[in-house]
Amino acid sequence: MSSESNPGRRRVEADDATVHSTWNRDLEPVETVESGDVVEFTCRDATDGQIGPDSSVTDVVDLDVGPVHPLTGPIAIDGAQPGDVLEVELLEVEHHGWGWTLVLPGAAELGLLSAEFSDPALHVWELEDDVGHFVNGIEVPLNPFPGIVGVAPDEPGDHETFPPRAVGGNLDIRHLTAGSTVSLPVAVEDALFSIGDCHAAQGDGEVCGSAIEAPMTVTCRFDVRTDLDIEYPQFETTGPFTPTGREGPAFCTSGVADDLQEAAKTAVRAMIEHLHDERGLTREQAYMLCSAAVDLKINEVVNAPNWVVSAYVQEAIFPEDRRRSALEG
Amino acid sequence: MSSESNPGRRRVEADDATVHSTWNRDLEPVETVESGDVVEFTCRDATDGQIGPDSSVTDVVDLDVGPVHPLTGPIAIDGAQPGDVLEVELLEVEHHGWGWTLVLPGAAELGLLSAEFSDPALHVWELEDDVGHFVNGIEVPLNPFPGIVGVAPDEPGDHETFPPRAVGGNLDIRHLTAGSTVSLPVAVEDALFSIGDCHAAQGDGEVCGSAIEAPMTVTCRFDVRTDLDIEYPQFETTGPFTPTGREGPAFCTSGVADDLQEAAKTAVRAMIEHLHDERGLTREQAYMLCSAAVDLKINEVVNAPNWVVSAYVQEAIFPEDRRRSALEG
Repeated sequence: MSSESNPGRRRVEADDATVHSTWNRDLEPVETVESGDVVEFTCRDATDGQIGPDSSVTDVVDLDVGPVHPLTGPIAIDGAQPGDVLEVELLEVEHHGWGWTLVLPGAAELGLLSAEFSDPALHVWELEDDVGHFVNGIEVPLNPFPGIVGVAPDEPGDHETFPPRAVGGNLDIRHLTAGSTVSLPVAVEDALFSIGDCHAAQGDGEVCGSAIEAPMTVTCRFDVRTDLDIEYPQFETTGPFTPTGREGPAFCTSGVADDLQEAAKTAVRAMIEHLHDERGLTREQAYMLCSAAVDLKINEVVNAPNWVVSAYVQEAIFPEDRRRSALEG
Repeated sequence: MSSESNPGRRRVEADDATVHSTWNRDLEPVETVESGDVVEFTCRDATDGQIGPDSSVTDVVDLDVGPVHPLTGPIAIDGAQPGDVLEVELLEVEHHGWGWTLVLPGAAELGLLSAEFSDPALHVWELEDDVGHFVNGIEVPLNPFPGIVGVAPDEPGDHETFPPRAVGGNLDIRHLTAGSTVSLPVAVEDALFSIGDCHAAQGDGEVCGSAIEAPMTVTCRFDVRTDLDIEYPQFETTGPFTPTGREGPAFCTSGVADDLQEAAKTAVRAMIEHLHDERGLTREQAYMLCSAAVDLKINEVVNAPNWVVSAYVQEAIFPEDRRRSALEG
């Protein structure tokens, strides 16, 4: 799939020359590479340094959403043309030892249940190799990935980083772990690839609006494919397909509604209530844990007029005395 | 969790006295059991015998949707009261060696992409222990479960079996495999539990409207909980959490849209195109395989205004020469 013939290797640091917080097809590329080349990127956290390892909830209140998300790039992939496909192989994704998750109420309306959470909250995670430490002895296994991978859209002018698009961007696909390859439809000459918004772990859905957000170093190999034709991103991944990457029991709450988003909200509400009532978390902690480690699955979307979405949490993230088997006796 | 003190064990055959195809709180119970008792049910296939091991696509054209779904029951669980929770532990779920998947166009509008499929199709699966045989050497690992588990709704009169409700019913949660426990909110006196619509395997979403539909035998233990309060179903499961139950690479297609259902449609369309172009399936075969073995995950539902849903297929279901690693060379 990749050209292995002596590929070039570059490093692009996140600095004032390379960080940008909008997509724009007219940004000057900070590097130009060939198909087959490898690039190591450093990426800032999603707030561009406003939250740090010593932050408290007052830093959430004062947050300026303008710098969100600082992306590193863009990289020109020489010769890539609109209609080609840019394959991005994620070779290494490494966190720097800490991360954060927050609940941000108010004008930003960040999160699936934003209308139901009026108080800000912050958890700063200590990240040890492959585990992140939450409260009450809860340990979330880490599977780091870049939340944003994308190429420049065709339309001129500035485009917000918040919504994902057909050309990628803020996809937040938690399976884009090291070893995965994501394919993006090229929309402009030389593709203009940027990356950022890295997450040390995330549940499918990212329901509170932030995962375990963390600065990281990501190494990618780029390949231009002229023999493929895609309209939206595609990817190959080895998972893991549970938040823990381990088999074992999960506790799950279902939502039933005539709209998938309403069904998802119902499922997450019930999971938050469960985590509060049975696992000893505050509602804000429960909401953040859902975002970092609870998966939303579409169980059925064909039994009109009602669809089913369920929220899944693996028992393995809880200490033994907080697992359902112990609670039930 | 369960009363182990000499539980009663009953067997309820699917026959003219026990099969019903609507929910109704006034149906006479066919058995009355105590909390802690075990019941073995036989369940007919979803068409009530209109499709058999020797059926062909002409049987699909002539299908009468009236008898769908034949449920076995109802069982009264003595003393269960509205507001209680009925725990149903799935002890054994056994297929009978064959199953079917179909595409049913026309008035029934069955399936996520019903408007895009105008020709009927049928695949009759030979089920060997834990694997189902599709076309082109594709083998789908089996994880049998009842698509419908539910208790009678509170509202009087007949209610269709097609839509799931807060009291359960046509949930099609593929993780309700043997060893799982599903909790249902009791709405009427004695709960009135029924079961049916068994599936030998299904992808999250069941996108063409039928999974691997099969007659089965299901053994359940019932427990009434008066100490819980739930509004929608909840469950504990050990999965498996991939269609194969194995780790290994998956190929995935993403949809990006401001509506989760549109995003799901986009992802499934791209997966069908992929299965057609690269794995040698007809479009109808691809749609049926998506329903039986492709998972829909909500990647993010917070990056307004666009959400991401992706469709996941495990490479392990394909013969080695049809895996992407071989196709890509």
